[in-house]
This record gives sequence, C-alpha cells and structure tokens, in this order.
Amino acid sequence: MTAMSVVAFGGGHGLSASLRALRHCAGELELDITAVVTVGDDGGSSGRLRAERGGLPPGDLRQALVALAGDHPATRRSAGLFQHRFAGDPRDGLAGHAVGNLVLCGLMEQLGDPVAALAHAGAMLGAVGRVLPMSAEPVDIEAQVRGVDPTRPDEVRTVRGQHQVAVTTGTVEALRITPDAPVACAEAVAAVGGADWLIFGPGSWYTSVLPHLLVPGLAEAIVASPARRLVTLNLAAEQETLGLSVADHLAALRWYLPQLTVDYVVADSKAVGDPEPVGRAAESLGARLVLAPVAVDDGTPRHDPAALAAALVPVLGADR
Amino acid sequence: MTAMSVVAFGGGHGLSASLRALRHCAGELELDITAVVTVGDDGGSSGRLRAERGGLPPGDLRQALVALAGDHPATRRSAGLFQHRFAGDPRDGLAGHAVGNLVLCGLMEQLGDPVAALAHAGAMLGAVGRVLPMSAEPVDIEAQVRGVDPTRPDEVRTVRGQHQVAVTTGTVEALRITPDAPVACAEAVAAVGGADWLIFGPGSWYTSVLPHLLVPGLAEAIVASPARRLVTLNLAAEQETLGLSVADHLAALRWYLPQLTVDYVVADSKAVGDPEPVGRAAESLGARLVLAPVAVDDGTPRHDPAALAAALVPVLGADR
Repeated sequence: MTAMSVVAFGGGHGLSASLRALRHCAGELELDITAVVTVGDDGGSSGRLRAERGGLPPGDLRQALVALAGDHPATRRSAGLFQHRFAGDPRDGLAGHAVGNLVLCGLMEQLGDPVAALAHAGAMLGAVGRVLPMSAEPVDIEAQVRGVDPTRPDEVRTVRGQHQVAVTTGTVEALRITPDAPVACAEAVAAVGGADWLIFGPGSWYTSVLPHLLVPGLAEAIVASPARRLVTLNLAAEQETLGLSVADHLAALRWYLPQLTVDYVVADSKAVGDPEPVGRAAESLGARLVLAPVAVDDGTPRHDPAALAAALVPVLGADR
Repeated sequence: MTAMSVVAFGGGHGLSASLRALRHCAGELELDITAVVTVGDDGGSSGRLRAERGGLPPGDLRQALVALAGDHPATRRSAGLFQHRFAGDPRDGLAGHAVGNLVLCGLMEQLGDPVAALAHAGAMLGAVGRVLPMSAEPVDIEAQVRGVDPTRPDEVRTVRGQHQVAVTTGTVEALRITPDAPVACAEAVAAVGGADWLIFGPGSWYTSVLPHLLVPGLAEAIVASPARRLVTLNLAAEQETLGLSVADHLAALRWYLPQLTVDYVVADSKAVGDPEPVGRAAESLGARLVLAPVAVDDGTPRHDPAALAAALVPVLGADR
C-alpha cells in the first residue's frame, strides 16, 4: 500500500480536529499528512509575540504540531509542555504565553526559517506529519462588515485584524489580507502539487479556512493540483459566521476561488438540519455530500476524531 | 568494564567545563555522570523568572544540561535552541531570556517537580548524564564582605544575593545561604552515596562551589560517601575571589566542611605559579596535587575539555 498524501488547510481548533481525525485513519489508510496553517493571528500570546518580536504568530502552528505529536510518553509530555500556558496577568512577563509559542518563536529566530523551525519542533514532538505555514510572512486579515453597530444595520465598516474579525458582531461581506499577495510557502505549494487529497475545514471560515485561498501562489497550486478535494463543514456557526448558512460556507469558498471544484463535502447529519440546500450547494461545486454523525456526543459543537475518521476513511479510500 | 559513577558539583560555566571534560573521558573510561547544581542565582533571566514565577532559577541547570547534550544533529540543534537568548531590552517581555530557561520554567510548572522536569529536559537534549538541583527549593546567598567601600577598608558589610556576591569588590569573609538548612535533593543525596568520584570545581568558589557544602543533607552525604574526591582548581581569580590564593580556595573548602577530605587536586601548571603553597594546601586535605596543562591556549582562563579530560583520565582510572 502506497501512502496517500493529504494536505489539510486551516488554523486553530478546526485544523486540529481535522488532523486528529486523519491520524485516526492510520489503522485503515496509510496517510502522509501535511498541515498548511494560516499566519494571520494577532490576538493573545501569538499577537503579542508577533508585535514584540516579529515573525510568524506561532499559536496556530503550535496547535497543529501538537495535534500531530507522537504517542510515545516522552513526546506526549513534550506536547503537554508546548500547551502549558504560564498563568498570571497577561500584560506581564511570561504570563499568557504557551511554552510552545516561545519555543517556536525561539526556533524561528535561531534558524531564521519558519519551515526549518517547524521541522525541528515536529521532531521534538515526534510528529506523525508535517506542519507548514501558508506563507513565511505574517499577514493581516481585514473584513468589510455590515452592521457592526446594531443601530446602523446598513453601514459597512472595515474591521482590521484576525481577532477583531473573529469576534465581529456584524455580517462579513468581504475579506482580504494584507499584504494582498504574500509569497506562498514553497514547501506548501509543492505539497499541494504532489497531494492526493486537499482538505478544507473545519474551522473559523473567514479567519482560518478562506485566507489560504487569498494567497495567490497557494490558490494557483490548489487549482492546478491533480488532488481530489474534500470540505469538512463546521458543526455550528461561530461569531464571525453568524447568519451564514451551511450552504453559504460552500458558496464562500467558490466566491474567493471561483475555479475551485470540490469532490466531497462531509457534514454532520444533525448539524445540517434539512440536507437539501446543502446538497444543492455541494452539487454546484461538483461535490457529493456525505452526511455522517461526526460530532462528539456531549452536545458541544466539536468533531469527534474517531467519528470523523470513520466518515473520512471510505471517502479518502474510494477509487476515483 | 563497569561504569564509574561521577558526581560533579558546581553551577554555571565552571560546572559546564567539568562536565564537558568528563564527556571527553568517554573514549577511555565509562562514566555515569551526574551534575549537582546550585540554586542560588538571582541575576539576569534566572533572577527574573525566579522573582516573577517562583521555582528554581533555571540558568545554571540549563547550562549543565546543554554541556551534557547528545551529539546527534537534532539534539545539538535543541541545545542551540536552549541557549538562544531573545534579544532586546531585558526589562521587556521575552528579551534577555534564554529559551531553555523558559522551557525549564514551564516544565517545572507543568510537572510540579524539578527532578522530573530536568529528566524530561535531559531526554529532549539526548543528555549523556543527569542534572539535579542541590535542593528543590531556591536559596539566597549572603556574604559578609570586608571593604566593599574602598574608603572604609575595615568595614564588614552583608552583601545579599548571588549576583551581588559574585561582583562584590571587597573580600568575602563568611558565606551563608537562606534558608540556612534547605532540604537536599533526595536524588542528589542518593547519587553522592552511590558515587565512585565526587568532583568539586572549577567555578565561582563562593557562589557555585561552596554553597553545596552549606546544604546540611548534602554535606552529610558527601562526608559519608565512600567515593574518592577530586577538586579542580580555577585558572584565575574571579571578582568574588580576588585576593584569594589558589591555596586559599582549598582552605575555604575545609573551612565550610571541616570533615572533608580530598584525594586529588587538579590544577593548571601555569596558573598555579609556585606549586609549593598549593601542594601544601592539598596535602593538608589529604590530597595529591596533579599539575597539568588544562587551559585553552588562547590565554583566556578557560579549561580546555580535551586537556582537562587528559588530566582526569589517569586520576579517575587509578586504583585506590
């Protein structure tokens, strides 16, 4: 059995869920996993590090690495160290920083190259896959948002910064990144070109999933790749996507990358409700809709890695 | 060939030199190396971490770990990461901190036990020996110093803090630690009890070498240990030991631990000058003086690991 190359796009918790599910496929499928991660974070520990020290915001990269960390007790402990967050007033010294963010920040300074830094961090964690940034330069996310001020529901304002976009109360009408044409990470472009599968989502649609499509070199590689494409939909709307239907999520992908075709859309049977509009939206992208119970069963909108893996295995393993 | 257990006491650069020399003995002798490290630092990155977050000052522990880091390229790179110091104004954010200090600080918080934290950090670095703190609680170093103020050469003042003692301009007349009877690290006590050799120095005599003798449990273990003892003398007086002759260094060991006997004293032939007073001081501790060229040959007062190893091999390997 030859390994299939899978490239998963995202950032933060959604990408972690996707990576954990892909790991769970290992019993059934041999996968060579590459995570391509957004670099627009400007909040919390990552935002402070980025502002104070320059370089890429490390938080989403750290989460992807930890999701892929090896199962050996020593690498599990190192993953716990990466996730350990110093307590205390976050304006003060180390407080608020996750140790892994500091390690990544130090490695990027030491080696002068985020790809080499991530490779070394991956080795420290015995990672079962590779983590790459979408670009070696950080980006800023900006959105045109309608109705930020509820007393002026028709006014459109520019909301700047990933964190502000993620928590905006209005309706996102347009998304862009600054610089508007960052250089795509060459290793990510190569991984996309050599992939068997490209997986988008789950995750914060505007701030973790769509930004990849706004990096010209990555968008071109995605369009040109012979890989099949799969979209994993979210289980619930987030603050930034309130008012966006499940079908609208698919429409947004097409809006920002019109040449994008999709082969499969995986969604949670309960979360979609009426499957008809989602089915139609999937079809307009050329995709088959796969409905499966993929959420944890405690009622929180989180993907269960084993359940998502069970839904992914027959899809990823299917003949073309 | 059964491995000989060697316990090296110190802190900072001197201990690193000792550990690097012991590693160099590996071709000739099979050594099981344990470093026991002072925990009194209150300056620089370590001092800030200790003040802000509590726990042991990590800097000297980090240096010992790095001195023992494995030779594999990945562990060499991790050692480089541990030593990487964030640049910038040291009152601000991460600036001034070595990454390894932050990793050790995080591990000690995460695992709640400095010995477990050091074992994990050692594994991360592929360390060829073990690093232990002399005590799991930090200590403060205080000295009675004569002539701090050069206009009052006979006045004795109390100088508080390892950093202040290390840079004092007067003559140290008495040394103590606070708390005055910290609990010795149990693993260090056990290592001393099972050792074939105990090695003291080189290093800052008052702030890195003598503090071990002031921890009651450790002093008792040293006196009771069946191990042979070796003292490696410094190559030059440091600020804190200006006015202290090489022979005085040996007298100070005996002053703070009167029951201490020593088997060998290793000194640099050039650095000692007239060997007669050193020979007599060694003899009064029951020790043989071994003179050898152990300094680097660029004129700086640093031990050359290979040269020190060449002097140590016949001593450590000698029959009782």
